[in-house]
Amino acid sequence: MVVMITLLSCARRLAVVVLVMLVCIATDARAQSDPLPSWNDGAAKQAILDFVARVTRDGGPDHVPTAARIAVFDNDGTLWAEQPVYVQAVFALDRIKALAPQHPEWKKTQPYKGVVEGDAKAIADTGEKGIAELLAVSHAGMTTEAFAKTVADWLATARHPRFRQSYDKLAYQPQIELLAYLRAHQFKTFIVSGGGVEFMRVFAETTYGIPPEQVVGSSGVVSFELGADGTPQLVKQPKIEFVDDGPGKPVGINRFIGRRPILAFGNSDGDHQMLQYVMAGPGARFAGIVHHTDSTREYAYDRSSKIGQLDKAWDEATAKGWTIVDMKRDWRKVFAFEP
Amino acid sequence: MVVMITLLSCARRLAVVVLVMLVCIATDARAQSDPLPSWNDGAAKQAILDFVARVTRDGGPDHVPTAARIAVFDNDGTLWAEQPVYVQAVFALDRIKALAPQHPEWKKTQPYKGVVEGDAKAIADTGEKGIAELLAVSHAGMTTEAFAKTVADWLATARHPRFRQSYDKLAYQPQIELLAYLRAHQFKTFIVSGGGVEFMRVFAETTYGIPPEQVVGSSGVVSFELGADGTPQLVKQPKIEFVDDGPGKPVGINRFIGRRPILAFGNSDGDHQMLQYVMAGPGARFAGIVHHTDSTREYAYDRSSKIGQLDKAWDEATAKGWTIVDMKRDWRKVFAFEP
Repeated sequence: MVVMITLLSCARRLAVVVLVMLVCIATDARAQSDPLPSWNDGAAKQAILDFVARVTRDGGPDHVPTAARIAVFDNDGTLWAEQPVYVQAVFALDRIKALAPQHPEWKKTQPYKGVVEGDAKAIADTGEKGIAELLAVSHAGMTTEAFAKTVADWLATARHPRFRQSYDKLAYQPQIELLAYLRAHQFKTFIVSGGGVEFMRVFAETTYGIPPEQVVGSSGVVSFELGADGTPQLVKQPKIEFVDDGPGKPVGINRFIGRRPILAFGNSDGDHQMLQYVMAGPGARFAGIVHHTDSTREYAYDRSSKIGQLDKAWDEATAKGWTIVDMKRDWRKVFAFEP
Repeated sequence: MVVMITLLSCARRLAVVVLVMLVCIATDARAQSDPLPSWNDGAAKQAILDFVARVTRDGGPDHVPTAARIAVFDNDGTLWAEQPVYVQAVFALDRIKALAPQHPEWKKTQPYKGVVEGDAKAIADTGEKGIAELLAVSHAGMTTEAFAKTVADWLATARHPRFRQSYDKLAYQPQIELLAYLRAHQFKTFIVSGGGVEFMRVFAETTYGIPPEQVVGSSGVVSFELGADGTPQLVKQPKIEFVDDGPGKPVGINRFIGRRPILAFGNSDGDHQMLQYVMAGPGARFAGIVHHTDSTREYAYDRSSKIGQLDKAWDEATAKGWTIVDMKRDWRKVFAFEP
């Protein structure tokens, strides 16, 4: 009985508390600045704000329960820069160079010789087999933990050739704000990228606030082994298991997330099927494409680019009224390090 | 300036609010009953309570940040009953029977004839090829959404042969409480099971409070296709892609979760490597094994069982002092439907 009275009394106190908090939150909301300060006012920003308002409005016709607020983002070219070459490719080449002193035989063997000498043509001449070999040597033959440390050590020292910043600084400030804005509205944010899942997990949490279990990516075979002292370990094998790109993206979403997202962001034809899949579901949906139009602050490329080609997805986006983010026009700031 | 004063005033009001809330929470905690009421007091329950207290104690030597509080649970035999036969196998056989009228040729073809006639020996005689065929026919050739509906419809009507309850009622009440208790202490709870991921996701959220993106399991190949009307869809193919059992469990954990859990619960040798992997990490760790010792309320089986064999993992658990939950002794109640 005493407990019941105490609880009832607490309930009343809580009601007051909630009222006070609501007043505070309302005041705070008015006082608060723009949740997307690095986005210029315009159609793209407005489309995002409108979509989030629609799906979060309690009792509204487009309301989406919090559990179903799944948002997926491509990484390269959507969350961070992918030019002049994918960051993970730079890592792979740097890793080969770092290992070269232990492999004198590489001085005479392609594609290693080409890597050490910076001879892109010699590497390209070895074809798919050569590239697969470079990936295997740089990404396999070690435990998953040793690989994560290798990536972290590399990220701490490597610098982008043009911007002279560590690669995690090449994350787009407007997208970091967008991810935080979505999470503040009870979205669960995922990366769905063609990049290696174990590569991205090293920086996704600190750079984007996305925990390892919300990173979906390409992966190699991993085997469970007992080490010499009986310690269980996971060892990365030189064999590709899953390519999370193009039609692989909706497959990866189904495999890892198990439900259809309501918002997807990409920047290239590698994101086309993911955007199609997300838009084909029922209810309110959002598809966004980053169009790289700013050679001054970042890069300008689309239909004919070898990296991040945007052609078919652009046509469908235009035809269907998906949101195209024009980097030059829509982003007030691209990188946090800009003056 | 006005905004600043408003915010300061709010900050003061919030301090009062937080104080009031803390009093309420403290009162509530005293008033609250046992968080694990279906567990008998004993070593197993105490080990769980002690572990959670250790890893959640702020500033304590074993404190684990909330993001790293990952708990993984096997499903069959750990979260719900797996006798007299795996639930998913019952589903597969029922599905074949339901499809039989559309396949008159099955009357003369094994293993289908055996399924329709309930002739287990005839099915077994077709070997792995026959079993693979049954799995393919019952689990593939349809979209992921159609499959989920098939499972949901089946679950709504199928009944366990002994308990005459729908299969979701065969979830263990003490484990449902344990999952909720862990989540209340900021653990993220995952299923890591040999069962099919798309089968489990249908009931995991309502039965265990575990959302689809936190279910790790075996999977078949899924392909992205554009339907006749151009609608994108994911179609289940008759090919196994990943078996999340034995050494596949730590591999699945690495692939889907991307960090080593600090707590794992299993019941059979299929969970052995997962338990080893979890216990091999640094800091405080917990390994639990459900030992089926209660033929009256559930089933009693271990070393020589064809389903859920517990042999090698039991030996290691005994040698290393992992927590063995004796169902008969440690669980006050097994199923919620018990009187």
